[in-house]
Amino acid sequence: MSTSDAAPIALIVHAHPESRSFSSAQTATAAQALRDAGYRVDVLDLYAEAWDPALTRGEFEPMDGYFKPQAEQQRAVENGTLDAVVKAHLDRLLAADLLVLSFPLWWFSLPAVLKGWVDRVFVMGGVFGGGYGILGDAALAGKRAMLLFTTGGASEEFRPGGLYGSMDDFLFHIHRGMLEFVGYQVLDPVVTYGPARMTDGERAAALHSVSEAVALAAAEALEPQPVAH
Amino acid sequence: MSTSDAAPIALIVHAHPESRSFSSAQTATAAQALRDAGYRVDVLDLYAEAWDPALTRGEFEPMDGYFKPQAEQQRAVENGTLDAVVKAHLDRLLAADLLVLSFPLWWFSLPAVLKGWVDRVFVMGGVFGGGYGILGDAALAGKRAMLLFTTGGASEEFRPGGLYGSMDDFLFHIHRGMLEFVGYQVLDPVVTYGPARMTDGERAAALHSVSEAVALAAAEALEPQPVAH
Repeated sequence: MSTSDAAPIALIVHAHPESRSFSSAQTATAAQALRDAGYRVDVLDLYAEAWDPALTRGEFEPMDGYFKPQAEQQRAVENGTLDAVVKAHLDRLLAADLLVLSFPLWWFSLPAVLKGWVDRVFVMGGVFGGGYGILGDAALAGKRAMLLFTTGGASEEFRPGGLYGSMDDFLFHIHRGMLEFVGYQVLDPVVTYGPARMTDGERAAALHSVSEAVALAAAEALEPQPVAH
Repeated sequence: MSTSDAAPIALIVHAHPESRSFSSAQTATAAQALRDAGYRVDVLDLYAEAWDPALTRGEFEPMDGYFKPQAEQQRAVENGTLDAVVKAHLDRLLAADLLVLSFPLWWFSLPAVLKGWVDRVFVMGGVFGGGYGILGDAALAGKRAMLLFTTGGASEEFRPGGLYGSMDDFLFHIHRGMLEFVGYQVLDPVVTYGPARMTDGERAAALHSVSEAVALAAAEALEPQPVAH
């Protein structure tokens, strides 16, 4: 399929500190699968950009008194004074039809560098609140998002009743609390369990599975949004 | 109650960028309640220390090749080459009988600065893995941990079937994935819902409730550990 100005846009936000990691290979594989499916692909590599995950007073215009982070985000949106890097990332987020968060699962959640991307870029007034609501009334409503990640543990350890607990239960805070909250319909995650214990041949097969799963998600993301739930 | 060298130790890890916030008041209130209950209290203020939440290659001794974060953590523990700040925080963590994570709930999870404290200080080989196992065999087994936090939303929005979803479901990734994983028995969280919308009188009453709840938790944390589950 050829790409054009009318092609859908996918933003992959990548968060692994090693460019030769399996997680980084998953990002490259997903990017190619999305291009093959007709997307224009924008890859944001948080470690390569040395992204600072800590939301601090310093990124806002000087203010008197008490620092209320989300109120300052909304004020900065309204006054056009968002931090230039945050603004650039927000613009890339708003331009994308499909958001892919690509990372290694650290402590059953996002690596801090990626959690801090959510803290700083999912700005109040810019993606929810202010002129927007939340959930189906937030800025990303009508768009899709998905997680693409690796684990240390094996898949059976993430089954209901498994050693750790159910993967769906671990992902709830991201799927519901971050992605659905800002309006996304969440697609099924694409997960590679335990690539560190795989042979080279198994890793190649796993990347092939990632490519196929992302291609399916890419097609699903172009279908009309189902009725809101 | 008087404190002595035999007194139990509580470590409060605090993560709010504004020292005059309600979250910061909760930390101060909890610290006093714990002192009154006979604890020696150690407060680690991550924003005040300008804690860097991003786990990077730069904190480890130079290595050839591929950066595997947890393998490097374990190697650094074994070789005595942990980053000095990480080592100091790890020592404070291991010394504490009770861990309290005190924060505002951002995106239904820990602020990035606190997630990055877990990423960098819950080191493989130091709190789990290496000479330790996980869960009941990890380094913090026999100790207690608890969350102390504020929300933006109202309590009814966090009930099962509420607007957001069940608070227990949101906290699962922290309780199970971070705290139980390294051995802690998790005490009930202490939560103040929506302090931003309270009057000064309501906030004072809420802090009084925090003090009482932390005092109860402090007593519970001194009881013998129940049989492992």
